[in-house]
Amino acid sequence: MSQKEHLNILVGQSGGPTAVINSTLYGVIIARKRYPQITGIYGMINGLKGYLEKPAMDLLTLGYRELELLKTTPGAYLGSCRYKLPEDLSDPVYAKIFSRLEKDQIDIFLYIGGNDSMDTVDRLSRYGEMNGSPIRFIGIPKTIDNDLMNTDHTPGYGSAAKYVANTVRQIVMDADVYDLSAVTVIEIMGRNAGWLTAAAKASRKYHGDNPLLIYLPEVDFDMEDMLRRVRDLLKTHSAVVICISEGIHDADGTLICEYGHSSQMDVFGHKLLAGAGKTLENIIRDRIGVKVRSVELNVAQRCSALEASFTDVTEAAACGVKGVALAIEGQSGMMVTMHRDTEELIYSIDYRGTRVDQVSNAVKAFPKEWITGEGTDIADEFLPYLIPLIQGESYPPMEDGLPRFLYRKQSV
Amino acid sequence: MSQKEHLNILVGQSGGPTAVINSTLYGVIIARKRYPQITGIYGMINGLKGYLEKPAMDLLTLGYRELELLKTTPGAYLGSCRYKLPEDLSDPVYAKIFSRLEKDQIDIFLYIGGNDSMDTVDRLSRYGEMNGSPIRFIGIPKTIDNDLMNTDHTPGYGSAAKYVANTVRQIVMDADVYDLSAVTVIEIMGRNAGWLTAAAKASRKYHGDNPLLIYLPEVDFDMEDMLRRVRDLLKTHSAVVICISEGIHDADGTLICEYGHSSQMDVFGHKLLAGAGKTLENIIRDRIGVKVRSVELNVAQRCSALEASFTDVTEAAACGVKGVALAIEGQSGMMVTMHRDTEELIYSIDYRGTRVDQVSNAVKAFPKEWITGEGTDIADEFLPYLIPLIQGESYPPMEDGLPRFLYRKQSV
Repeated sequence: MSQKEHLNILVGQSGGPTAVINSTLYGVIIARKRYPQITGIYGMINGLKGYLEKPAMDLLTLGYRELELLKTTPGAYLGSCRYKLPEDLSDPVYAKIFSRLEKDQIDIFLYIGGNDSMDTVDRLSRYGEMNGSPIRFIGIPKTIDNDLMNTDHTPGYGSAAKYVANTVRQIVMDADVYDLSAVTVIEIMGRNAGWLTAAAKASRKYHGDNPLLIYLPEVDFDMEDMLRRVRDLLKTHSAVVICISEGIHDADGTLICEYGHSSQMDVFGHKLLAGAGKTLENIIRDRIGVKVRSVELNVAQRCSALEASFTDVTEAAACGVKGVALAIEGQSGMMVTMHRDTEELIYSIDYRGTRVDQVSNAVKAFPKEWITGEGTDIADEFLPYLIPLIQGESYPPMEDGLPRFLYRKQSV
Repeated sequence: MSQKEHLNILVGQSGGPTAVINSTLYGVIIARKRYPQITGIYGMINGLKGYLEKPAMDLLTLGYRELELLKTTPGAYLGSCRYKLPEDLSDPVYAKIFSRLEKDQIDIFLYIGGNDSMDTVDRLSRYGEMNGSPIRFIGIPKTIDNDLMNTDHTPGYGSAAKYVANTVRQIVMDADVYDLSAVTVIEIMGRNAGWLTAAAKASRKYHGDNPLLIYLPEVDFDMEDMLRRVRDLLKTHSAVVICISEGIHDADGTLICEYGHSSQMDVFGHKLLAGAGKTLENIIRDRIGVKVRSVELNVAQRCSALEASFTDVTEAAACGVKGVALAIEGQSGMMVTMHRDTEELIYSIDYRGTRVDQVSNAVKAFPKEWITGEGTDIADEFLPYLIPLIQGESYPPMEDGLPRFLYRKQSV
């Protein structure tokens, strides 16, 4: 394939959007400057599921100014999907996908996504290999959860972590204005991994500052212990702010949000979570008799381009370029990874690749050694890991006081 | 008083914080450059309530760099309170307050706040007048709700409106990535006035763009009509985003949030609202059988210094200076107001004053003529009013990827 003169790339976005998933798409498109053998770059509309139903989009029609806007546009420019390929590779959907890929003369298939999307890349590359297909399948990481294996961190995490640290900081200052005992519970995204919630650690500015308690899903949550700690803290603090991951659970594995609500499943069999913060709010109010408010940071965590990390935007774009590079080198069944050179005094990232089957459906948990205070706090050692990832501001161009973004569906 | 050589100012912050309430405090402090007869500026810690219990803070100890940080620090630097003075001016608390003011040799009392704080200024100035006190009482407006009478708008509104417009825009882009029928309900602050929710209008970027429905408390909410409209919209749109004020109510005056929950009262007899969005989420899911998510923008609306409007920050500071100027002129029982010169082609504001009793406990509703679509949309005519207020970015200085703010309680 490396000798082939005319290469066509098909690229898709999958799973939940982030502030920088379009930066990666930007990187894929500008890779053509380095690899003139690329003659076509096409975008799946609404991921692999949409590709089976709709024509792909010619991305080489985007001009310089549109590409610059794309780089700082949140959401998923191409649209996304949550679509699970069957485990059985003899399922007819595989033949259907490959027949479409061959019809479109696709040489390189790039999929930007998280664990589930890497599972898709893994299955397609195994099917292709089994059937002697020359098509290369490469995954490019994207998740605010930072829970992919074999990579220092994931594009999307830095911007979401920056948003979390900033927003928690500002909610703490808001909570701190009254001289009355009050508890604020902030619910942060993260079903299985606490990386994003841990970023709240960076918002603490002085000794005794909030958030005073931080709970991750990596530790069994003990309701009575939490209530005891809150009662104690209220003796010396008027405002107590608690940060929790949406996925915190007790020692029996019961999710805290299930204490209050019934739950539903999504298409991947994940529980649809809502309301761990609301549940704690009600329990703390009932049991301690104090004013309690809960704040769910919600989807703004993953779509706030205005508070994105410049480092994250830049790295996401570089991951896009690297995805193209791996495919051009002839690799398949791989995911782009980021390696931090810990020997360097100045933060620097080396872009490599890992086998996608080592990533798909696995979760990189937040390290136990960085969880302190009997499971209620984060160690200072986490900060040198986190702080470089949230460096620099990435301001989109503004128009009438609002950011200017690129829209696929309609002219602006 | 204008002849007095040595004037002492006491300034306090009251009610809910905003992104720019400290910009106004900054304006009060720097006013000393214009009025050298000011010899002392003291800050009430936790408003009037705190002043009765705690020593005031000498604000002239703040240096240039601290003042620059104060200007872009969210929350309430001095702390705030929710404290209602008794209607009966013969209540002993008034004598207690004036005895403390005289002991501290205060000449000018400045109170930065909303409707309830203007009520406090009104009562104190009436008590002072009745008792021949020379102390001047001036209110300086502050509320994200924009619901104060006799002023074009209020400091705090521009930044909150900018945050709402930006966040709704980005949530719309997040909601738009899937090709599945789904409804998103965004709950925006506003108990009685829809100014902040109306700002969601500015986030619409093209014909047929979301948010497709906007509901303010100025219009009786009709559940069946909303369900009918959502069903219709889902025929042509995969994502339907609805923005609502927290205070929407039906024709009987029943709050929509009460459809789902019991409610509590705060100290001013306001209903403590929570969950209009959650209530609609559940009703739409039950009745239409579609995927529904609700997002409560919550306190981030009033404390997001990172997304503040430069115009708002500047005007808030100018209101602080004007508050001092009104008092130095010898006025009392007045609130600073902003007048837009509609004859000017370029947006410009003239700072004046109005009698505080015309503001206290009144609410300036969103104009009926700007509500369209049978109560489901906002007129284009609103945009020339709004857009100048959200112009310009006000980025606080950054440190380790996070904003640097000024803290009263502890050294940074």
